[in-house]
Amino acid sequence: MAGVDVRIIEQRPTKLTVGQADGIQSRTIEVWQSYGLAERLIREGNQVHMSAFYGPNQRGEIECTKRERLVTPLTARFPFIVTLHQGAIESILLDSLSHHGVKMEQPVAPSAIEVSEDIEELASLSSYPLKITLERLDTVDDAIKKENVRAKFVIGTDGAHSWVRKALNIAMEGEHTEAIWGVIDIIPDTDLPDIRKVTRIHSTNGTCMVIPREDDKVRLYIQLPGSDVFDPSTGRVDKRKMSPEKLLGVARKMFRPFELRATEVEWWTIYTIGQRIASSYSVRERVFIAGDACHTHSPKAGQGMNASINDSHNLAWKLAQVLRGWASPSLLKTYELERRQFAQDLITFDKEYQVLFSGKPRTAENQDGLSHEHFFRASEKFGDFITGIGVQYAPSALVNAKHQGYANSLIIGQRMRPQTFVRAADALPVEIQDMLPADVRFKVLVFTGILTDTRIANINSLAVQLKKPSSFIQKYAPYGNVSSIFDIITIVAGRKDEANFLVVPLLFRSHWSKVLLDDTDVMGRRGGHGYETYGIDPAEITLVIVRPDGYVGMVAPSTALDDVNRYFSAFLIPRGLYSS
Amino acid sequence: MAGVDVRIIEQRPTKLTVGQADGIQSRTIEVWQSYGLAERLIREGNQVHMSAFYGPNQRGEIECTKRERLVTPLTARFPFIVTLHQGAIESILLDSLSHHGVKMEQPVAPSAIEVSEDIEELASLSSYPLKITLERLDTVDDAIKKENVRAKFVIGTDGAHSWVRKALNIAMEGEHTEAIWGVIDIIPDTDLPDIRKVTRIHSTNGTCMVIPREDDKVRLYIQLPGSDVFDPSTGRVDKRKMSPEKLLGVARKMFRPFELRATEVEWWTIYTIGQRIASSYSVRERVFIAGDACHTHSPKAGQGMNASINDSHNLAWKLAQVLRGWASPSLLKTYELERRQFAQDLITFDKEYQVLFSGKPRTAENQDGLSHEHFFRASEKFGDFITGIGVQYAPSALVNAKHQGYANSLIIGQRMRPQTFVRAADALPVEIQDMLPADVRFKVLVFTGILTDTRIANINSLAVQLKKPSSFIQKYAPYGNVSSIFDIITIVAGRKDEANFLVVPLLFRSHWSKVLLDDTDVMGRRGGHGYETYGIDPAEITLVIVRPDGYVGMVAPSTALDDVNRYFSAFLIPRGLYSS
Repeated sequence: MAGVDVRIIEQRPTKLTVGQADGIQSRTIEVWQSYGLAERLIREGNQVHMSAFYGPNQRGEIECTKRERLVTPLTARFPFIVTLHQGAIESILLDSLSHHGVKMEQPVAPSAIEVSEDIEELASLSSYPLKITLERLDTVDDAIKKENVRAKFVIGTDGAHSWVRKALNIAMEGEHTEAIWGVIDIIPDTDLPDIRKVTRIHSTNGTCMVIPREDDKVRLYIQLPGSDVFDPSTGRVDKRKMSPEKLLGVARKMFRPFELRATEVEWWTIYTIGQRIASSYSVRERVFIAGDACHTHSPKAGQGMNASINDSHNLAWKLAQVLRGWASPSLLKTYELERRQFAQDLITFDKEYQVLFSGKPRTAENQDGLSHEHFFRASEKFGDFITGIGVQYAPSALVNAKHQGYANSLIIGQRMRPQTFVRAADALPVEIQDMLPADVRFKVLVFTGILTDTRIANINSLAVQLKKPSSFIQKYAPYGNVSSIFDIITIVAGRKDEANFLVVPLLFRSHWSKVLLDDTDVMGRRGGHGYETYGIDPAEITLVIVRPDGYVGMVAPSTALDDVNRYFSAFLIPRGLYSS
Repeated sequence: MAGVDVRIIEQRPTKLTVGQADGIQSRTIEVWQSYGLAERLIREGNQVHMSAFYGPNQRGEIECTKRERLVTPLTARFPFIVTLHQGAIESILLDSLSHHGVKMEQPVAPSAIEVSEDIEELASLSSYPLKITLERLDTVDDAIKKENVRAKFVIGTDGAHSWVRKALNIAMEGEHTEAIWGVIDIIPDTDLPDIRKVTRIHSTNGTCMVIPREDDKVRLYIQLPGSDVFDPSTGRVDKRKMSPEKLLGVARKMFRPFELRATEVEWWTIYTIGQRIASSYSVRERVFIAGDACHTHSPKAGQGMNASINDSHNLAWKLAQVLRGWASPSLLKTYELERRQFAQDLITFDKEYQVLFSGKPRTAENQDGLSHEHFFRASEKFGDFITGIGVQYAPSALVNAKHQGYANSLIIGQRMRPQTFVRAADALPVEIQDMLPADVRFKVLVFTGILTDTRIANINSLAVQLKKPSSFIQKYAPYGNVSSIFDIITIVAGRKDEANFLVVPLLFRSHWSKVLLDDTDVMGRRGGHGYETYGIDPAEITLVIVRPDGYVGMVAPSTALDDVNRYFSAFLIPRGLYSS
């Protein structure tokens, strides 16, 4: 989409058809939406809106103790998770790649990688400092089996056993736990009324989690007594000691008094949980690792695929800007800064969450056990994190919180909060996130406030300042083409039946669709109170800088234009007005 | 979609690329949605949400007098119209046909049609009483040019100059008016701030209507002084006396003091308005005409294509039920009954609307003119009609208003009013209209009320009655397969965190997705108060019968099951439990 030449290799010979990851969290759906891919994901997947909690009663049987919404943060745009098997999720990505002329090569694996030691070569963006050997796994013909490739960048998204990570001697730090889990995908026949919700069963026979999926299927995560499947000679779990029937037998005890049968078993496995993180995410900002290659953790909060997608989303636009010559290569250091912190938080979270899941419940006999109240309070507390909505990047060149006070509820370093505005020209209701696609451009949101005569004069004066060669929108624009690198969107505090958007200077309305109003749609069903929601004063002119990945980078009053200029000067490369 | 064998012929050699109809009204979008086609229509089209009115000020220049929502009925599911050129609209239909294995044959036209006079043949559904000769227009090879076809039914949807209508000597009744209009599609360059709204300009130089469209285009309807283009020798308008430049010149005078230029002219034409209606819609219920073939009127309220689509929508499921042997052929008489009444209302409406558009505005000099206030009040009054939302079919075998009092706000004979419920099993918010697809089946909505013990007993007793062979759901079901002809949907007055939908008898929940709750989604953003909205008492059990075209056919309390049985006995054909 960004026009970067890529080759994508995959060692598996074909697509996955069953099993593996299958939950897309609320924030990740927003990310898919920013690439134009959420519609199909939502259409093909199953939505889960509710969670239910079951705990033991005095007879030792489970009963429902609470039902509540699954996605707790009130700012969620998509108040649900989408579940869909990994093969279908990959198909959406592969079809999009194919639409852009890229075909994933498989089965192909790397067999050697070498990073140049030449400082000059490493510093130059026209050089190819990486040597990689690729091997086709479906041939024994030496003439075509091996291929030597030179690359500017390599990204290893090759999972928990990452070849890239090992080849570059990046260590994984952390530990394995002793908890052992089974996972099984079935079509259930049950009288548990909450089988179509994310249901957490905390029984005296162990804990179980129900994840409803597409086509009437359900995934069960089942806590296993370690001794049954642990092989002391290898220190690993032995799948041969388990079977789908045995797994269901364990789950059935936890379900009592509810019945549980499977009319179909699609996939199953058992595993132990490691909580580890790579010591580094990069070698000289030329090779990167992302996803499970740099962090592993329990799958039960549904973070694995989501963390991975968000790693790549964070890295992609930075690489594109550097490759285009817009941004300095130093920008790439923020990838590890932002995503390694997230992974560390994830491990911390996972450990606490894990205890919740593996701990014995409190009962009449076991007063030291975990109270059920504690269990779902914790779950609520972790909602911001699990959904991805509360992820916050630390201050850096990209995250400048100096003027946070000018938009108190638009947290700098967090994703741009969703809000419906209406287009000034035609009153079309527009979700602001849809005006911020992942198109490699920074978005400059100009909140003009109410269009009084004074404010109109101030806006015109702001336009004059921004047209100066020293202003950021001129200084970094290739060939003086502002809209190639910045997308300017104007949000007026005004009503759709009154405001005349033609008084907004042309700089702030490159097309009639770029001016929005803070008002409801024509039926009053959506939108309105955007300034209030964001904590922006309609008596001021306020600039909000949104990064290409949809995170708020900076907020500033129009009087602090110098600070905005400084923000961009930290990582963008200035150009002459008419040179590239 | 209904599995009926069809051949579709079209005399044009290729698809339209410009001009013609291009507005899909709110109710018509609902109809497209019921066939699963609205998503693409909305994605590809332009939405118009607002209208603006301009009238003359004391200087004789126009100024905006009001801006308001375009779709006035509060129950609109889609509070906008979609504008898109006819070729793109046809493409959506053609792609759907192609997906179902049907290819439109073109350029092919009929040259002869003969309806059998044999009463027995006409009465039998296994006979083919129609003989048609088709001619391929793209060949002179006599061997393949002509083809004789026998058919059970023929539908002439061949426009205002319908060959089918003429061949069967069906008269058009009504008159031509003297109003002459020009229409032109342009990309405008203007400082009229409301160019992206449906803008009705009522100037001292005549009236003009602006319809914004896809790709920044705009259609202008421009009132023309008749003498300029009228050819007295033929009694018709002469397009050669007009040009796009002249048309724009006329519009420009109406736009004053606003500027109007066209950066591109895509299509234009001029026309007079006929308001006529066919004396009959059918020959022996074997040949039907639909759309412009049976009614013509002004295009300015955007009714032409919409009336046509809704004619066909009304006829399609009736033909499918008759062809399947479910319904008696007498059902087909309701097509003319329902749609001819609509066309007559349309002509009446059109005449009144036409006067509004062609009349001189009231000014200081012309106190007899039409006041602007009158102009947009009328427009509001007509909103129910223009949008299609208020269309109401008269009492008939299909529309039984006897028990209207049991759902006072769910008007029998009107389309099922949209409302969001949540699925009991998983709290997915569902628009009730999406549970009522145009799939040839009647929908039986069981509003159970609140699930008290008494009500549960009553529901079980209702299920027992419905399982008797004399009940409608058994009597008409082929091979005893209820769900092939009826879709039963249950709506419980209960909360998503409390209700246990498993107490609902299995007859009323053929799948877990068939039970809904009258509650909001998890965020409280959509749904709730459905019983109240419909005027249904949650202390009763109420049945709502929705026709396959989405119109409410009957409402009944569960105590009036005999009336429901009688409703269906008027047109459905009884079967033995195990015979077809």
